[in-house]
Amino acid sequence: MELPSKHLQEAVDQFSTLPGIGRRTALRLAMYLLRQPAEEVEMFGQTFKDLHRQINFCEKCHNITEEELCLICVAPKRDQQQICVVEDIRDIIAIENTSQYFGVYHVLGGVISPMDGIGPEDLNINSLLHRIEAEGAREIIMALSTTMEGDTTNFYLFKRLKDNDVSITTLARGVAIGDELEYTDAVTLGRSIANRLPYESSLAR
Amino acid sequence: MELPSKHLQEAVDQFSTLPGIGRRTALRLAMYLLRQPAEEVEMFGQTFKDLHRQINFCEKCHNITEEELCLICVAPKRDQQQICVVEDIRDIIAIENTSQYFGVYHVLGGVISPMDGIGPEDLNINSLLHRIEAEGAREIIMALSTTMEGDTTNFYLFKRLKDNDVSITTLARGVAIGDELEYTDAVTLGRSIANRLPYESSLAR
Repeated sequence: MELPSKHLQEAVDQFSTLPGIGRRTALRLAMYLLRQPAEEVEMFGQTFKDLHRQINFCEKCHNITEEELCLICVAPKRDQQQICVVEDIRDIIAIENTSQYFGVYHVLGGVISPMDGIGPEDLNINSLLHRIEAEGAREIIMALSTTMEGDTTNFYLFKRLKDNDVSITTLARGVAIGDELEYTDAVTLGRSIANRLPYESSLAR
Repeated sequence: MELPSKHLQEAVDQFSTLPGIGRRTALRLAMYLLRQPAEEVEMFGQTFKDLHRQINFCEKCHNITEEELCLICVAPKRDQQQICVVEDIRDIIAIENTSQYFGVYHVLGGVISPMDGIGPEDLNINSLLHRIEAEGAREIIMALSTTMEGDTTNFYLFKRLKDNDVSITTLARGVAIGDELEYTDAVTLGRSIANRLPYESSLAR
């Protein structure tokens, strides 16, 4: 596909670097921008040009912030002794949206995945251990994906943490609210029978 | 969805303005850029910041160019008397990829679509008429979409052009090469029987 302008080609190339965007979509997006007012497109570019300069990662939990520490770590009402370990900043956003969690977070930046060449040293695991040693923690909630990689990471963290005086929990696994039983997979359903709850706790939502 | 940084929010907002990109995808793309090296993301922004300044539209055919006229309009070997009318610059790229066309183009910038509030005055139709008056043309090939809007635009152009001494053609409609007859829609198949060709012409590919 030869384009009539090298600058259009550059714009298409840049869009193509984004995950899930192929060359055809990239061209469609670049053509869309060309039809927009020049000032708006300049603003579009400026936003990404400044992105790295204006966004930092929290020194404590690796969440996104514009200061040294993130808004959650500095909030006086958050329980600093309860740390929820997540893969990604998007998981923080998802949990914050529930308004059900009042502790702090720790972003690992991924999960252990030998297939992708990601080992424990590539994740923010040492900073989690230092943080627990320095400041203590009452509870570590492991909120990772329920995939093989997530389970491996959970197991690794459990082994590294178990000598500390801290209780280690994971998110409840079970039938999702709104799901029909017949479509729930056997592993989830089996686990939800084994870990059944007193009826009263299902009312407290 | 509340984000931990106003600059991240801006990046997500900017991605969300693109067609086909919702807020979740926008966040995924912004997070991807945050994980890339700062220089690369700065380059990403710079490319779009410069986009409008570096790309013009050809004064003659409205194709993309970095000069006043596009590479096709200035090419000495192209037949200036044969004008292929297309909706969009992407259609030029598609036709150029066939290496079967040696005339020039005229980009309408869309099709007549009353539902979307697009009338003839919103398209590059007057510049096409001026161009034909000023420079003459032997043939106008109408290469618009085979939709109702494309057909309406074809009909409108035909009415405006028919008093000029120019032959007006459209792309051949018929069974696509590689298609099975039983899956071809009835209108296309009916048209391809009515407009059947001498066998020899099907060999000249």
